[in-house]
Amino acid sequence: MKLKVDINCDLGESYGQFKIGYDEEVMPHITSANVACGFHAGDPTVMKQSVELARRHKVAVGAHPGFPDLMGFGRREMNLSPEEIRSYIIYQTGALQAFAKTSGIKLQHIKPHGALYNMAMKDPGLAKAIVEGVVAFDPDLIVFAQAKSEMAKAASKAGLRVAHEVFSDRAYNRDGSLVSRTGSGAVIEDPRIVTKRAVEMVKNKRVVAVDGKVADLGEVHTICVHGDNLKAVALVKALRKGLEEEGISIVSVGNLV
Amino acid sequence: MKLKVDINCDLGESYGQFKIGYDEEVMPHITSANVACGFHAGDPTVMKQSVELARRHKVAVGAHPGFPDLMGFGRREMNLSPEEIRSYIIYQTGALQAFAKTSGIKLQHIKPHGALYNMAMKDPGLAKAIVEGVVAFDPDLIVFAQAKSEMAKAASKAGLRVAHEVFSDRAYNRDGSLVSRTGSGAVIEDPRIVTKRAVEMVKNKRVVAVDGKVADLGEVHTICVHGDNLKAVALVKALRKGLEEEGISIVSVGNLV
Amino acid sequence: MKLKVDINCDLGESYGQFKIGYDEEVMPHITSANVACGFHAGDPTVMKQSVELARRHKVAVGAHPGFPDLMGFGRREMNLSPEEIRSYIIYQTGALQAFAKTSGIKLQHIKPHGALYNMAMKDPGLAKAIVEGVVAFDPDLIVFAQAKSEMAKAASKAGLRVAHEVFSDRAYNRDGSLVSRTGSGAVIEDPRIVTKRAVEMVKNKRVVAVDGKVADLGEVHTICVHGDNLKAVALVKALRKGLEEEGISIVSVGNLV
Amino acid sequence: MKLKVDINCDLGESYGQFKIGYDEEVMPHITSANVACGFHAGDPTVMKQSVELARRHKVAVGAHPGFPDLMGFGRREMNLSPEEIRSYIIYQTGALQAFAKTSGIKLQHIKPHGALYNMAMKDPGLAKAIVEGVVAFDPDLIVFAQAKSEMAKAASKAGLRVAHEVFSDRAYNRDGSLVSRTGSGAVIEDPRIVTKRAVEMVKNKRVVAVDGKVADLGEVHTICVHGDNLKAVALVKALRKGLEEEGISIVSVGNLV
Repeated sequence: MKLKVDINCDLGESYGQFKIGYDEEVMPHITSANVACGFHAGDPTVMKQSVELARRHKVAVGAHPGFPDLMGFGRREMNLSPEEIRSYIIYQTGALQAFAKTSGIKLQHIKPHGALYNMAMKDPGLAKAIVEGVVAFDPDLIVFAQAKSEMAKAASKAGLRVAHEVFSDRAYNRDGSLVSRTGSGAVIEDPRIVTKRAVEMVKNKRVVAVDGKVADLGEVHTICVHGDNLKAVALVKALRKGLEEEGISIVSVGNLV
Repeated sequence: MKLKVDINCDLGESYGQFKIGYDEEVMPHITSANVACGFHAGDPTVMKQSVELARRHKVAVGAHPGFPDLMGFGRREMNLSPEEIRSYIIYQTGALQAFAKTSGIKLQHIKPHGALYNMAMKDPGLAKAIVEGVVAFDPDLIVFAQAKSEMAKAASKAGLRVAHEVFSDRAYNRDGSLVSRTGSGAVIEDPRIVTKRAVEMVKNKRVVAVDGKVADLGEVHTICVHGDNLKAVALVKALRKGLEEEGISIVSVGNLV
Repeated sequence: MKLKVDINCDLGESYGQFKIGYDEEVMPHITSANVACGFHAGDPTVMKQSVELARRHKVAVGAHPGFPDLMGFGRREMNLSPEEIRSYIIYQTGALQAFAKTSGIKLQHIKPHGALYNMAMKDPGLAKAIVEGVVAFDPDLIVFAQAKSEMAKAASKAGLRVAHEVFSDRAYNRDGSLVSRTGSGAVIEDPRIVTKRAVEMVKNKRVVAVDGKVADLGEVHTICVHGDNLKAVALVKALRKGLEEEGISIVSVGNLV
Repeated sequence: MKLKVDINCDLGESYGQFKIGYDEEVMPHITSANVACGFHAGDPTVMKQSVELARRHKVAVGAHPGFPDLMGFGRREMNLSPEEIRSYIIYQTGALQAFAKTSGIKLQHIKPHGALYNMAMKDPGLAKAIVEGVVAFDPDLIVFAQAKSEMAKAASKAGLRVAHEVFSDRAYNRDGSLVSRTGSGAVIEDPRIVTKRAVEMVKNKRVVAVDGKVADLGEVHTICVHGDNLKAVALVKALRKGLEEEGISIVSVGNLV
C-alpha cells in the first residue's frame, strides 16, 4: 500500500496592519492549514481571507486556538481553569467555523497553538479540558497531537480521531518529545536533512534522537512546517518534493485517520 | 386575534471578574436574550453561562455583536470598512453560535450593540455590511431594528426577517426616532408610564412624541428592556404584567415574524 | 514609642463601564492606595479619577501593576521573561506616575497585583526582574512584600525600602506564608477576629497559624484590606477603629520605612 | 542664516512577535522619533528598545499616542469624550516618559497617531482635549501639527511650542491640507520629486498643490518620513542628502521652535 502523509502549517497569523507569514506562498505546498482564531493572532478579516485562500488551494482547514495573549503571541504559559479552557476552545473554534461556513467548507481538525499545545502534550488535566471543548462543539474534528502525548491519550479516550504530528525540522529526545527550541541544535534548517528525517519518520516511524539512539514515534499522520519566511517556504517545497520522490503521497489528514 | 409581543434584553455583559447586570433576575421575565459576544463585553465563559441560563428559562437567544472596544463598552462610534464589519459580525455570531450548539439550541436573532446599532439605523452602507454578514453566516436569523430604519430596509431587501423594536422607556421624536439619551426626559423610569406607553405601542402602533404629536411606529414585534440594576428588573416585571393584563401575550419573536 | 501601621487597599479596578469596588467608601479609612494600571484592570480615566480621589483624602498612592490579562483580572499565572517583566513594570508604573504628576502628588510605593504578587513572593528570578524595573524607574518607591519573601529579599538587596505586608483576614501557615485562598477557613470575615489578629500582628509581630502554633511575621508595616463590597468596607472601618483603640496609629507607610 | 529642518518618523510600531518597520535602518537618517505607546501599536518591550535605539543614535524622542485600537492600528476614527482623550494622552505619554527616564533622556515632543492626528487637525474640541492632556502632563513638550490646523491653533493658544509638519511625499490641496491618501497621485514615491518638494517647502514655505496653484505652508519645522519598507528608507536617505546639498541643516526640532 502506498504511504501517505499530511503536511500542516500554522497560518492566518497576521493581525490588522501587523503582517506575519507567507501564507500565499506556502499554501500550494501543504494539505492542512491551522488558522489562528483571534486570541493569540488572527483578526476576523484575516481569518476570513485565510479560510478563503485555503479553500481555493483545496487545503483542509483546522482551528488553531491559543491563549488570550496577543502580546505574547500565545507562546507564554498561562494557568487557566478547565472551565476557561473549554470555553476558549469553543469560542475560537466556533468563530473560525463561521468563516468555514461562509466559505462553503467544513473544518477538518483542531490544533492548539504555542504554549497551549506544548502544555497540553504533558498536562492530562489541560488535555482533558481541551478535548471536552472539542467533543462539545464538534466530535468530528480531528485532534493534532504528538503520539503518546497526554493530548493524544485524552482525545483517543474521548473517541476523537487523533492525527499524530511530527516536526522533521526539530531535534527529538529519545522518548519522542521535542528538544526545547532554545537548546543548541534544536532547530534543523538544512532542507536535505529535514527531508531525510521526514522520510525516515513516515516510512519507519522513528527518528534519530539527540543522544544518537533511535526514538520510536509510532504512526505518523502529519508533518508540521512553517511559513514565517521565504527560506521556510523553500524548505516546505523541497520537503514535499523529497517525500513524493520517495513514493509518499501528500494528502489531507482527513483521509488518513 | 390575540396581540403578541416579544420582550428582549441585552445580557451576558460581564467580563471575567467584571460583573455587569442582573441576568438571573431578569431572565424569567423576557422572551429574547441578546448575548454579548466578546468584543464590547462578554468573555467565552460568560457567553457559555448566559446561553445555558437562557436555555433553562426557555428564552430565545440572539447574537449581540459590537465594536471591538471593551474600554468603551461598544458605545463609541468607530469608522470601520464594510469588509471589517462583515468579518466582525460573522466572527462574533459564529462564536456565540458555538455555545448555542453546545447547549443544544439554535440562535434566533441578531441585534447589533450600542454605537453599532445606533449607527446602523441611520447609515445605509453600514446597515448593508451588517446584513451581508448575516446573510453569509445564517439567513435564518431575525434582524432586530427600528421600523423604517436603514437597518430594517437593508435586512428586508436582502430577504431577512426583521423584528421591529421599540423602547417604551425612551422618549421618541415625531419621525419615530429616539430622543438622544443625553437629552432631558429622554429616559422614562416610572413603571406605570413605561407600561402604558408599551401597551399603546403594541395596540395602536404609535406613541406620543416629545412634541406632543403622535409618532407612527408601524408594527411592533419586540420591546427592549434593561437588567442593569434591580430597579430595572422590577420595571421589566411590572411591564410584562401590565402587557398581559391588557391581553397581550409575551412570546419569543421567532413566533411573530 | 507609639506603634504605627499603614492600611493599604487595592482600588481603581473599574474598567470603562465595568465597575468594581467601593473606592469612595473605603478611601477615608486607608492610608495607602494601590491603583491598578490598565493591564489587569483600570483604564486611563479610572486611573486619573482614582489618583485624584486618593489625593483628596490624603491617601498615599502606589502603582499596582499586573499581568496583561484583563480577562483573568491578573489572577492567572503567566510565564514571562525577565525582560518582559521589567518593561511591564516600567510601563505601568510610568503611566500611573503621569496621573500622580497631573494631580500634583508623588508615588509612594509599588505593589504587584494578583498572580504577579503571589509568584514574586516565591520566585527569586521574577522578584529580581520586578525590582530591576523599579530601580530603573524610581528607586525611591517603597516595595510592598511579605516579610522573608523572595520579593522582600530582592528589594532589600537592591537597596530599596521594603514595607512588610500582612493580611489579617487570611489564615497563615507556620512559616509565615498564606494558606491558599481556596482552602477552607482561608479567609476570615468576622471583624472582631480580623481586628484582634491585626493587633497581635502589629504589637507582637506574630500570628497563630492554622496548625495552632505561632508564626513569626517580623516587623509589620502595612495591613492589606479590601473594598470589593460594603461588608468589606465595614470591616476596614472596624479594623481601623480597633487598631486605634489599642493605641496604634494609622499612617502612610512612607512614614514607617 | 542657515536654513534648518527636522526629519521625523513614526517607529516602535512592532507588537510582540508582530514586527513592523525598519527602525534600525531609518534611525541614522532622522532627527526625531515618534514612538508608539501601546494603544495602536508598540508593547512595553518594544518601547524600551525603541527609546534606547533612538538614544544611541542621538535622535530626539517623542510620544506617538493613538486610539485604543490595535486591530485597526489606530487608523480608524473613534468618537471619544474629551475626558477620555485627556486621560489616554496622559497615560500613553507617561508610559513612554518612563522609558525615556530609564534611558536617561527627556521627551522632546508629542505627535498623535493616525486617525487621532487627522481628526485633531480639523476638530477644535478634540485638539483642545489633546492639548489639555499635554499641558497637564508636561508643557515643555513640543506639539507636532500642520500649520494653520486646529491642533496648531489649540497648542499655540495654550502656550505650547508647535512644530509645523509637512509631508513632502504627499499631494497637497491649495489650502495647505493633504489630499486623501486614497486619491490618485496622493502619494509620491520618486525620491527626486519628494526631495525637490521638500527643498521648496523649507526654502520658500510653499508647495505646488494638485490644482497647479501654489499652496502657502508657512514656516516648516519638520518633515515626516516613513520607515515601513526598505524603499522608504532609501527615500529618507536620499531626501536628507538632497536637503543637505541645498545647504539645509538637519537638526532635532527642539532646536527650532
